[in-house]
Amino acid sequence: MISLDLGMLFDPLRHSWETGVLSSLPLNPWSLKFLPLLGAAPVGEDMSLTEAVAEVTEVAAGPDESPLVLASVLLSLVVVYFASKLGGEISRKVNLPPVLGELVGGVVVGVSALHLLMFPETGATAADSALMPILQFISGGALSPEALESVFTSQSEVLEVLAELGVIILLFEIGLESDLRELTKVGYQAALVAVVGVLVPFAGGTIVLVALFHTPTIPAIFAGAALTATSIGITSKVLSELGHLKSKEGQIIVGAAVIDDVLGIIVLAVVASLAKTGEVDVVNLIYLMVSASAFLLGSIFLGKFFNQAFVAIADKLQTRGKLIIPALVFAFIMAFLANAIHLEAILGAFAAGLVLDETDKRKELDQQVLPISDILVPVFFVTVGAKADLTVLNPAVAANREGLIIAVALVAIAILGKLVTGWAVFGQPGINRVAIGVGMIPRGEVGLVFAGIGAASGVLDKPLEAAIIIMVILTTFIAPPFLRYAFQGQPTDDAEANLDEAISSAGKAS
Amino acid sequence: MISLDLGMLFDPLRHSWETGVLSSLPLNPWSLKFLPLLGAAPVGEDMSLTEAVAEVTEVAAGPDESPLVLASVLLSLVVVYFASKLGGEISRKVNLPPVLGELVGGVVVGVSALHLLMFPETGATAADSALMPILQFISGGALSPEALESVFTSQSEVLEVLAELGVIILLFEIGLESDLRELTKVGYQAALVAVVGVLVPFAGGTIVLVALFHTPTIPAIFAGAALTATSIGITSKVLSELGHLKSKEGQIIVGAAVIDDVLGIIVLAVVASLAKTGEVDVVNLIYLMVSASAFLLGSIFLGKFFNQAFVAIADKLQTRGKLIIPALVFAFIMAFLANAIHLEAILGAFAAGLVLDETDKRKELDQQVLPISDILVPVFFVTVGAKADLTVLNPAVAANREGLIIAVALVAIAILGKLVTGWAVFGQPGINRVAIGVGMIPRGEVGLVFAGIGAASGVLDKPLEAAIIIMVILTTFIAPPFLRYAFQGQPTDDAEANLDEAISSAGKAS
Repeated sequence: MISLDLGMLFDPLRHSWETGVLSSLPLNPWSLKFLPLLGAAPVGEDMSLTEAVAEVTEVAAGPDESPLVLASVLLSLVVVYFASKLGGEISRKVNLPPVLGELVGGVVVGVSALHLLMFPETGATAADSALMPILQFISGGALSPEALESVFTSQSEVLEVLAELGVIILLFEIGLESDLRELTKVGYQAALVAVVGVLVPFAGGTIVLVALFHTPTIPAIFAGAALTATSIGITSKVLSELGHLKSKEGQIIVGAAVIDDVLGIIVLAVVASLAKTGEVDVVNLIYLMVSASAFLLGSIFLGKFFNQAFVAIADKLQTRGKLIIPALVFAFIMAFLANAIHLEAILGAFAAGLVLDETDKRKELDQQVLPISDILVPVFFVTVGAKADLTVLNPAVAANREGLIIAVALVAIAILGKLVTGWAVFGQPGINRVAIGVGMIPRGEVGLVFAGIGAASGVLDKPLEAAIIIMVILTTFIAPPFLRYAFQGQPTDDAEANLDEAISSAGKAS
Repeated sequence: MISLDLGMLFDPLRHSWETGVLSSLPLNPWSLKFLPLLGAAPVGEDMSLTEAVAEVTEVAAGPDESPLVLASVLLSLVVVYFASKLGGEISRKVNLPPVLGELVGGVVVGVSALHLLMFPETGATAADSALMPILQFISGGALSPEALESVFTSQSEVLEVLAELGVIILLFEIGLESDLRELTKVGYQAALVAVVGVLVPFAGGTIVLVALFHTPTIPAIFAGAALTATSIGITSKVLSELGHLKSKEGQIIVGAAVIDDVLGIIVLAVVASLAKTGEVDVVNLIYLMVSASAFLLGSIFLGKFFNQAFVAIADKLQTRGKLIIPALVFAFIMAFLANAIHLEAILGAFAAGLVLDETDKRKELDQQVLPISDILVPVFFVTVGAKADLTVLNPAVAANREGLIIAVALVAIAILGKLVTGWAVFGQPGINRVAIGVGMIPRGEVGLVFAGIGAASGVLDKPLEAAIIIMVILTTFIAPPFLRYAFQGQPTDDAEANLDEAISSAGKAS
């Protein structure tokens, strides 16, 4: 019980039980929040305190390890922010989009390298995490393996929810930055780009796998389907960073990516149904298509009415957060509803952003969403990087080789299959077709979902699964620098806005 | 498998297992994130898909229910924001500090009334939560009680961490709003106020309990100790809302509340030690006092150097979040360190805010912290309200009566014991002594921790425990309107700033 006894820092209850020193028990109020404050019946007065403490300890050894969870979330966030800033800044220095650096930063702190940020999803346990020994150290080794595991699980869960909130906020922000009228103007083009961008990689992937690699039809179709869905998060973030989100190309890409996301979910349903029964479940298919369209169009249509309600509410509120809170409530409700009808939560958030973009509160809202997005969005990108297991890329491991060879073919199709989409755009002379194609390249999460389902259901064998994972990783990492290159020489949104201003002020001056 | 089959909305895996329909399996990509993407060995190709799905389902039935956790966190946040805005706005309308309304809003949605926001801490299970039936409904009743319980536990854990991050951000903001030089100027006064505000309620509570209620000495000392610690979160938030945080009185209150918090932790250690061995563990006591002082003074001292590093870093960064991210990293590291040396995390965040207040980035940082604080801080206050079980206040329940009678005495001592602190201030003619005393009244969390430890260790019997809980609830709810009243007629921070400006511009004009 001397000043450097670190054993009692984080788990005073357990420590006091082991050493029998009650005085160390109540040191950290946070650590005692889990005591049954209101529900517990007091133990008899004749019970010794040591016995009582032992009883409390039993309660405390339950599922809740709050103070350690908070401590480990704080540490993880510090790791996330270090990784994102270091990666982002270096990326920027070499003239690449910062988000690429955030992804790479995530890879460095994640499962592929430092193991600071690990997730049960990739099969990791507390023993695999490099953060847990730090927690164990400051608690003086007093934590049981089960307690450590429970802290690890809780911390991962909190981080995953933060990452999900991050991508919800990101898509809300992208929605705010997008212009519904612009988006409607390029609607047909975006739909065409999306459809071509789903059909070409789907057909290409399936045919190449069957023809060149003699893959059976069902696994080939499944792998082909995994090539379809563009990652709207990564693509829109890169566009925003490059200053081309509001360009015609940018709006076509974002619109197409949104439609693409819906198509990807439908394709997955079709393929899974095909794989199981040999035929397509038409009713389910129609339901999906109708509900998705109804949600997106309906929310935008009803949004026009909600718009006015939103402005009226924000004008009436007088306490702090009078603008951001109603906006987030709307975004969260929309995300929840999208999720509830089988779509992704982020689509709801995007629709909410689009709707609120139409109000005269837009600029003020934009400004308030920025810092929230600044602290939550990196959690998403660093997490994506941290979960990417780059060891499948190592050709020195014999088991990786077959997958690597197939991966080369899949990556080529994935890139070419999206590149051609630029030429699906009609009636837009002078449009940057390469940029549109490149913008559709990154695959992200949905591709991994295909790989996961395929592997777990036995449709995909190990090499094909690995090939899909490699395809997702490479398209995600390749697209940002390529997109920057494709947009080279084209004026950015700011530059155009400045030009517009210059012209209009020149007009006034003359 | 028709369009209104809600059974597959949130848990397609489980549903598909039960109905044997694979096509409903992959509808929601979020719900499949937990598949062992990278680690799973593929099942044999000859295994039927149904068998494979059953196997996947077994994996999925594990601890992770991510999509439902996200959905229930989104719903809970919507509830939190509704409660905080409704309560806050009504409170404002009747000229009370909004934070009081947020607390009351929390009470309405929490364990005392609507049961929308429940926490395992108060003994609640999934069956007690009014949100869980909503989740059960949209998943078509497909969730097992265990799965629902696991979602409830995870959701509560995420919300608790968000609330803790909220109070960390709040204290960081209060630190940013406070002026270190002003605080140092009133340092002695604050220390005196804190010491008087700990000693008087401690002694008063103990003596009254022994003399009037014939409580045995040890429980009386324990209950007396529970009267000591002011809730820095509630008090500083009210001060900020009233526009008196930067007044001399405001700075004395905040300074005293910080010292008070440290003293409260020390008192708890002393009392617990006394209760067990009959004597005080001097070594531990000295360790606590030294480490607490060293942390607070050391961080402020070293902060002067870190200040320059922070500005240099922020100036060098070029990507988004270049100011807020380094600031939060600093705040989170300080919170972690404070936690690690037995103090509360919020004290570290407050110290971090104080330090960064000294830089020329202060204004910009202030502005960026605002929206983050707007969305996280309500989670804290609504949660505090939601956890307060007001049923102990019901005199119709016979078991509550003894506690209520003791509570009347404790509340009186709690209020008077802090009110007198205003007269401990010396050498400050014309200072608002009543306001200082009232500002120290709210007790909050630490008092509940005392009640919890006391009850669990058997030192406190049920009526005494209930009395302490009532004391915490009442002082917390009484202080905000009283404080507003005490400050009436005194110019607010803004008014004073305007006056200063007017005087200086008048000086320039002449």
